[in-house]
Amino acid sequence: MRAPSNLFKYALIATSISLVSGCQPQPQATATAAEAPNIIFMVGDGMGFEFISAYRYAHSQLGAGALTPTVFDDLLVGAATTYPDDATWVTDSAAAATALAAGVKSYNGAIGVNAQQQPITTLMELAKQQGWGTGAVVSVQVTHATPAAFFTHHPSRRMYDEIADSYAQQVSAGQWSFDVLLGGGYSHFDRDDKNWLPELSAQGMQIATSVEQLDSLEKTPVLGLFAPLALPHSIDAEPQLATMTEHALRLLSKQQQSTGKPFALMVEGSLIDWCGHANDIACAVHEMADFAQAIEVVLNYQRQQPNTLVVITADHSTGGLTLGQGGEYAWHSDKVMAIKGSLEVMTRGLLERQPNEFRDYLSPLLNLPLNDAQWQRIESVQVPAELTGRARQAPFAGVLVEIISEHTRTGWTTTGHTAVDVPVLAIGPGAEKFRGYQDNTEIGQRLMELIQQQ
Amino acid sequence: MRAPSNLFKYALIATSISLVSGCQPQPQATATAAEAPNIIFMVGDGMGFEFISAYRYAHSQLGAGALTPTVFDDLLVGAATTYPDDATWVTDSAAAATALAAGVKSYNGAIGVNAQQQPITTLMELAKQQGWGTGAVVSVQVTHATPAAFFTHHPSRRMYDEIADSYAQQVSAGQWSFDVLLGGGYSHFDRDDKNWLPELSAQGMQIATSVEQLDSLEKTPVLGLFAPLALPHSIDAEPQLATMTEHALRLLSKQQQSTGKPFALMVEGSLIDWCGHANDIACAVHEMADFAQAIEVVLNYQRQQPNTLVVITADHSTGGLTLGQGGEYAWHSDKVMAIKGSLEVMTRGLLERQPNEFRDYLSPLLNLPLNDAQWQRIESVQVPAELTGRARQAPFAGVLVEIISEHTRTGWTTTGHTAVDVPVLAIGPGAEKFRGYQDNTEIGQRLMELIQQQ
Repeated sequence: MRAPSNLFKYALIATSISLVSGCQPQPQATATAAEAPNIIFMVGDGMGFEFISAYRYAHSQLGAGALTPTVFDDLLVGAATTYPDDATWVTDSAAAATALAAGVKSYNGAIGVNAQQQPITTLMELAKQQGWGTGAVVSVQVTHATPAAFFTHHPSRRMYDEIADSYAQQVSAGQWSFDVLLGGGYSHFDRDDKNWLPELSAQGMQIATSVEQLDSLEKTPVLGLFAPLALPHSIDAEPQLATMTEHALRLLSKQQQSTGKPFALMVEGSLIDWCGHANDIACAVHEMADFAQAIEVVLNYQRQQPNTLVVITADHSTGGLTLGQGGEYAWHSDKVMAIKGSLEVMTRGLLERQPNEFRDYLSPLLNLPLNDAQWQRIESVQVPAELTGRARQAPFAGVLVEIISEHTRTGWTTTGHTAVDVPVLAIGPGAEKFRGYQDNTEIGQRLMELIQQQ
Repeated sequence: MRAPSNLFKYALIATSISLVSGCQPQPQATATAAEAPNIIFMVGDGMGFEFISAYRYAHSQLGAGALTPTVFDDLLVGAATTYPDDATWVTDSAAAATALAAGVKSYNGAIGVNAQQQPITTLMELAKQQGWGTGAVVSVQVTHATPAAFFTHHPSRRMYDEIADSYAQQVSAGQWSFDVLLGGGYSHFDRDDKNWLPELSAQGMQIATSVEQLDSLEKTPVLGLFAPLALPHSIDAEPQLATMTEHALRLLSKQQQSTGKPFALMVEGSLIDWCGHANDIACAVHEMADFAQAIEVVLNYQRQQPNTLVVITADHSTGGLTLGQGGEYAWHSDKVMAIKGSLEVMTRGLLERQPNEFRDYLSPLLNLPLNDAQWQRIESVQVPAELTGRARQAPFAGVLVEIISEHTRTGWTTTGHTAVDVPVLAIGPGAEKFRGYQDNTEIGQRLMELIQQQ
């Protein structure tokens, strides 16, 4: 089925509802349907409370007498537990995304399937069943755990190509669960063994491969794949999440004007988590800024369209970030903000250079007053010959994380996730349902109840 | 002035208000006065969000399908920033207590004084000015930063003896700012250079030196000093915070029956912070349990006397605790709960023993399956001869913290505090004022507004 037909289908449904209402007045049902809010569900991947604290202090001036306001300040309503249905209290992004997307606990690795690996209906599928618009905006590949769990069903998050196939087969069958899907992951759709893109275009899916191309698109459905895998880190390139979010809201609003139905949009600040895994504080704070800009876009939309519920949470916290290290009562936010590149970029750059070039290369990026001993620690890093690929960056990264912590007093405890509770923020109709402590599954359940109630 | 006179004074005030109301009806003022709630302000010293997460998972059973309910579950309303008016984002307990007690930012070390070292009115003093009952229950010495900042004014938290003198001089002058003060710190009141206790008794202050003695006390004022300095850690001895809190509520309620005035009580789970400084997870979880029991006592009281506002927060988070360490996606709560003693006790015990006695001594306390290499790390600890006093425990503590983290996957980043935001929990009339993000000074200000409004 081609896109115009799909839109036409919505129009038909809307008309028939209207006709039915005319013949057999059902004021309550009609009123509820009219009042159902748009849902914008925002996930800061890995964004524990400490990431919001870090963002706030990093953007404030010590000694200024007051903190710089942030978009988070007026939104906090509660916190959520994140444990999976697994032999550990620490969730991965797949189990957490499944909990948030479908309201069901599952095992680490599960993509939209329950503990018995059976597919479970997600809030996006439910929304689509009700004729709503649906979409997602992420800064990783759209095949990554969080977006995948909202739209597809797989026993393992590692099945990236199969997840791309799921999206594509939905399009081929004319039954796509998304109207707008923006992020990275081009390489999973255009592979050696299969290039889905011509087929998807033929089915009416508009495919954008640069964010700028979105400017000329006026209607759904849209699949935007703006990088082979993840988008670049915000500290290294122009952040895109807010712009992508603006386009998604524009396109879903237009669709809403045709269908008269609300939409459900998921927006993920995906790379906060990646910076957390890398124990890269400057990277994390810049991703938080990117996510905050996307929240600002959403809040502007919500002010114009108050019948929009915005819920913001994290799937888990990453890295064991804390703002204090080594006994010193300090967290040097000015030094964090001085850093000009991600560890990902810096360690790749070091691998390409000789030790005697390190200072010239690294000084403007790291931008911290390293002493000679610290420079010598970097210059004396040995990369074991048996390491290949990205693993070769690890020895440099280890030393840089230590040195950055010594200067900024940023603490990290793990390259994985932690079990600590995460913040829940909300505004709009129904926001009060998310107050206080709750389990991550309850967030998904409450959103699905809102969709079902219409 | 002796205690009975003090009580009589309250009765006089109450009577005169009643007479004035009778002559010149002021229904609004009278109604407000009648409705002013008791305030129970509970501070988990060092209790960041992660300590609540740790407590909850430690008391739950992995694989049970649901978490064990905790007293915290229904109370969360927001979070607070904690930065001091100082050259750092990381507060100490003194500046934070001054912010909570008086609604004013000050420098690290400040006890009830502003940045210019000038005394500022605290909520306890304001309450006393209004004829309210006041009190505090803590598990450290009552001269320690948090309680001291609610009742005294000093340029430095380290002036423990002077803080004891302040309390005592208030009593001597018949102008005590507390009606019930329970905790440790006997040695600051009975010193080589001065023993305040006979003088305080002569002034009508009832002095208890064991918690059991409280059973026989039927009226305020009461000063309870149950240890030379802090009370023992809850993991090492019978926890006392809940019992002390029960007595404080009983005594303040009786006073309230005479005066017709509300009371303001501060209850501090003080030693959560000390376990955090020691990076001692089992100790921290047991102190959280002690604090949770005190909260349960307070919630029971609040259910019986619903016109009671309970606000619970932390002054800061301590230790950089996270529930995940070293890349493993796990936090082994069962192993945390297996540990039977504090590091404070274990390291003191090791100092008293020969390495060949360590296994027999430590096995039942540590209660973790150490491998031979881990035992050897403990047995080979060298305590430098230049270390004296408690510093001699540090080399053992360092190794034990590492080994406990290896088994439990508990992460710590510092022996000091961190700048991360802390939880705010509340129930009762006015609880909604504490929703969302706020600064710690706003908590103190809102409580003082409640007192002033009466």
